[in-house]
Amino acid sequence: MSGRETGRQPKYQRIAAELREAIDAGRYGAGDRLPGENDLMAEHGVARMTARQALAVLQAEGIAEARKGAGVFVRDFRPIRRRGVERLARAHWSEGRSIWSADIGDRELAVDSVEVAEERAPGPVAAVLEVDEDVNVCVRRRRFVLEGKPVLLSTSYLPADLVAGTPITRADTGPGGTYARLAEIGRGPARFREEVRSRMPSRDEAERLALPPGVPVMLVARTAFDAEGVPVEVNDMVLDASAYVLEYGFEG
Amino acid sequence: MSGRETGRQPKYQRIAAELREAIDAGRYGAGDRLPGENDLMAEHGVARMTARQALAVLQAEGIAEARKGAGVFVRDFRPIRRRGVERLARAHWSEGRSIWSADIGDRELAVDSVEVAEERAPGPVAAVLEVDEDVNVCVRRRRFVLEGKPVLLSTSYLPADLVAGTPITRADTGPGGTYARLAEIGRGPARFREEVRSRMPSRDEAERLALPPGVPVMLVARTAFDAEGVPVEVNDMVLDASAYVLEYGFEG
Repeated sequence: MSGRETGRQPKYQRIAAELREAIDAGRYGAGDRLPGENDLMAEHGVARMTARQALAVLQAEGIAEARKGAGVFVRDFRPIRRRGVERLARAHWSEGRSIWSADIGDRELAVDSVEVAEERAPGPVAAVLEVDEDVNVCVRRRRFVLEGKPVLLSTSYLPADLVAGTPITRADTGPGGTYARLAEIGRGPARFREEVRSRMPSRDEAERLALPPGVPVMLVARTAFDAEGVPVEVNDMVLDASAYVLEYGFEG
Repeated sequence: MSGRETGRQPKYQRIAAELREAIDAGRYGAGDRLPGENDLMAEHGVARMTARQALAVLQAEGIAEARKGAGVFVRDFRPIRRRGVERLARAHWSEGRSIWSADIGDRELAVDSVEVAEERAPGPVAAVLEVDEDVNVCVRRRRFVLEGKPVLLSTSYLPADLVAGTPITRADTGPGGTYARLAEIGRGPARFREEVRSRMPSRDEAERLALPPGVPVMLVARTAFDAEGVPVEVNDMVLDASAYVLEYGFEG
């Protein structure tokens, strides 16, 4: 790839490419300050605007971020590895472990807000859950933070008659969470479908995830089916794309 | 969600939200022209700058795109549904079907460029393929287009000694592609791992995928393992995020 990135590139792009390579090679690590405009002007013999553009390219790509008055720094991309298969394996949640705990090693993913409500489901969710659009469902909204930084907005929809009278309708669902409670009433998830998209965040999403400019979100829509193939939950997730690697494994 | 998006939002955000809802509800379809600045000024009694900001919000989110002199139009999001499981099921490629053909219904995904080379693999790819970093591998670079629009850059790496003397080293690998040829030499993929990320494109990626501003890319790194669990291919894919929904299914 590097061969086709040189050639007749503008100067600021060449400087950006050089900095990008230095970051990839580990010469600048996460949180390190990149050379400033003055450094780049002296080193490459370019005008301030060219140096500024080079740094702007890396910021637009989400590789670097400017901190007011302090310079431009390499963003910390130490992603959460979220495994589709192992993460949701029955062995995990049936032992009372959170479905997230396997993903982050020594770092702690925590819920900093929970809202439980009875509301109409959005049309596509109602269709997947096979409930009427004018019937309320149980909606659980949670925000997850990692080391103080919000990384995930999760909105979970469950048929109201399925979860009535269970701790799923309360903020604290108890050990093992929603899936363990569903298992206790004989409706534990046996199969999952996840649909993954990516786009730029809405302003509301950017605020709630504290996203810097130039960072997209990944959308994961997960449907959980019980052993009979009946959908028991749809979970709409909005992820800080710079915080996550999603991993899936499957047979050929 | 709509409840928390109103409140003390700036006027241009409220107008953007209203247009977004109209698009979601289908009142403006893909390719439709949205109301112009003059329309929004008259309808909402706002200044031109406010109307312009409202339209800019939808463009930044990748929902709409400006066409010079013609106005702002709803982007065509009719995504390719790419299924991790069914798509790669042996039944498909062993019958000589492309792994992509199942995904797009009546639309045709075509390869518009193929480059085959022997090169060093990038460090992480060499590590996954368990080859020395200073040994050449077979590199296959392809670009896929859908209805004339490039949607996918695919770079496939295979151990050179594995594919030597097979059509995999040629531009045209024959019916069923690389995986069918690997199966013929007893090394067909039995298991896959896909790692998914998202970020803003590099300038080079944006050019080769003809991405409008505000559209991120999804990165899919797929590793194919043979029946013995030996890695036979790493495929680094860069996807136009506005063109794809990735679908995965797995057991709980």
